[in-house]
Amino acid sequence: MDVPGLQEFLDAAFPADLPYVVEGISDAAVRLRLAVDESDVRPGGTVSGPSLMALADCAAYLAVVGQIGPVALAVTTSLHIDFLRKPPLVDVVAVGTVLKLGSRLGVVDVALHTVADDALVAKAQVTYSIPPR
Amino acid sequence: MDVPGLQEFLDAAFPADLPYVVEGISDAAVRLRLAVDESDVRPGGTVSGPSLMALADCAAYLAVVGQIGPVALAVTTSLHIDFLRKPPLVDVVAVGTVLKLGSRLGVVDVALHTVADDALVAKAQVTYSIPPR
Amino acid sequence: MDVPGLQEFLDAAFPADLPYVVEGISDAAVRLRLAVDESDVRPGGTVSGPSLMALADCAAYLAVVGQIGPVALAVTTSLHIDFLRKPPLVDVVAVGTVLKLGSRLGVVDVALHTVADDALVAKAQVTYSIPPR
Amino acid sequence: MDVPGLQEFLDAAFPADLPYVVEGISDAAVRLRLAVDESDVRPGGTVSGPSLMALADCAAYLAVVGQIGPVALAVTTSLHIDFLRKPPLVDVVAVGTVLKLGSRLGVVDVALHTVADDALVAKAQVTYSIPPR
Repeated sequence: MDVPGLQEFLDAAFPADLPYVVEGISDAAVRLRLAVDESDVRPGGTVSGPSLMALADCAAYLAVVGQIGPVALAVTTSLHIDFLRKPPLVDVVAVGTVLKLGSRLGVVDVALHTVADDALVAKAQVTYSIPPR
Repeated sequence: MDVPGLQEFLDAAFPADLPYVVEGISDAAVRLRLAVDESDVRPGGTVSGPSLMALADCAAYLAVVGQIGPVALAVTTSLHIDFLRKPPLVDVVAVGTVLKLGSRLGVVDVALHTVADDALVAKAQVTYSIPPR
Repeated sequence: MDVPGLQEFLDAAFPADLPYVVEGISDAAVRLRLAVDESDVRPGGTVSGPSLMALADCAAYLAVVGQIGPVALAVTTSLHIDFLRKPPLVDVVAVGTVLKLGSRLGVVDVALHTVADDALVAKAQVTYSIPPR
Repeated sequence: MDVPGLQEFLDAAFPADLPYVVEGISDAAVRLRLAVDESDVRPGGTVSGPSLMALADCAAYLAVVGQIGPVALAVTTSLHIDFLRKPPLVDVVAVGTVLKLGSRLGVVDVALHTVADDALVAKAQVTYSIPPR
């Protein structure tokens, strides 16, 4: 799948206004940007943990879909995230890299940083259950 | 802290309308309910993973605050969650139980089920960094 | 399966001398004891983290086997553990409780304490891939 | 710290014969090899999960020590590992990369592959509590 195809898939799958922009896709990785708005703000002027977790989950999902195609329905089975630095209130980018894509499970590494610099703000490992193909 | 005190703390800390109701607090545990609305819906008629993760994070936070008091500012350092069953579209309850409260870290176990029955829909372990007291 | 059956299965599956004693099995839980010896010692007079992780993994495995029977070959797909307190150098007990047993995945909660008292020394969530039955 | 210094530190810290060889150290990463022997074998001719977890833990520990120096005593607070592929019975290499080194916590990403090829056999995220310096 290419960038417009993945964005179209995302917009169709989640009718509600998702604040995510697909910025790139390669062999094993997808790059997704969260357009930060007031709903993501936490006291102290940072992006909320739940906003970062939702972004990581979506980037991992798209990384799997980018590999197995738009028809499949993958389901998150687990997510582990370490929060590393408090991000400033700017857009956040997640790069999801497929570590394994088996017949039953897909595992994705997700690195999150802001558009301000490359310092990681969080790092996640996410597992998906792959439907029978 | 008691239930009204914890709810008041929650409402003050997050000025945005949080959909969480504190239902109980005991020695080591806090019970928090997510009033599910359309923003939590995922295709297939289930509650979204991000909504469950945000609920688990908040329940763990309140379990720590319930122990160390309302002045402290704890920060989530990591969250691990296993998704076990797809919940129906009803309110979800999270029970956060403090496993450890050290001078630097607090670790909380969070069990999530719906108001429909006691079957776990997800289970999390969440770690907080405790500020110097 | 009962206690002697599970112990026999364990001894047969791992020909090397495993230091584990099955102490109990109920509907969803298995209780496994690590007979601590010098190979488990870490400087400072505590049980090593790897010994605790290996115990948690084995307890989770037996909790799954206790449910699906001795013929099946389950494989660990992920393990998350929080270390809570440094245990003294006495035997450690792990209680593995099956949270979910689906057709493809089993998820087990594992609580570890020593025979000295009930204070948790570590808490894990372990996922197994279940072979087709 | 350099490779001989880190190996010396490792050998001194763990008087028991550890099967680990420090192969490299750079700014943020340490490369550690497990010399696989019969104690690491699992039925089916693969390296056991506990051997991989112990290796990941040690590589993460050395990555932190490589940064803060040999005097400090860091303690593992949590470990998350995804098992991706069953390794053949050859030596396994772990590359531990420091993601964050704060005043209280260090977080390390650990990638494991065998000497046979670069395919990941497991991927971990490990957190250490850093003693006051």
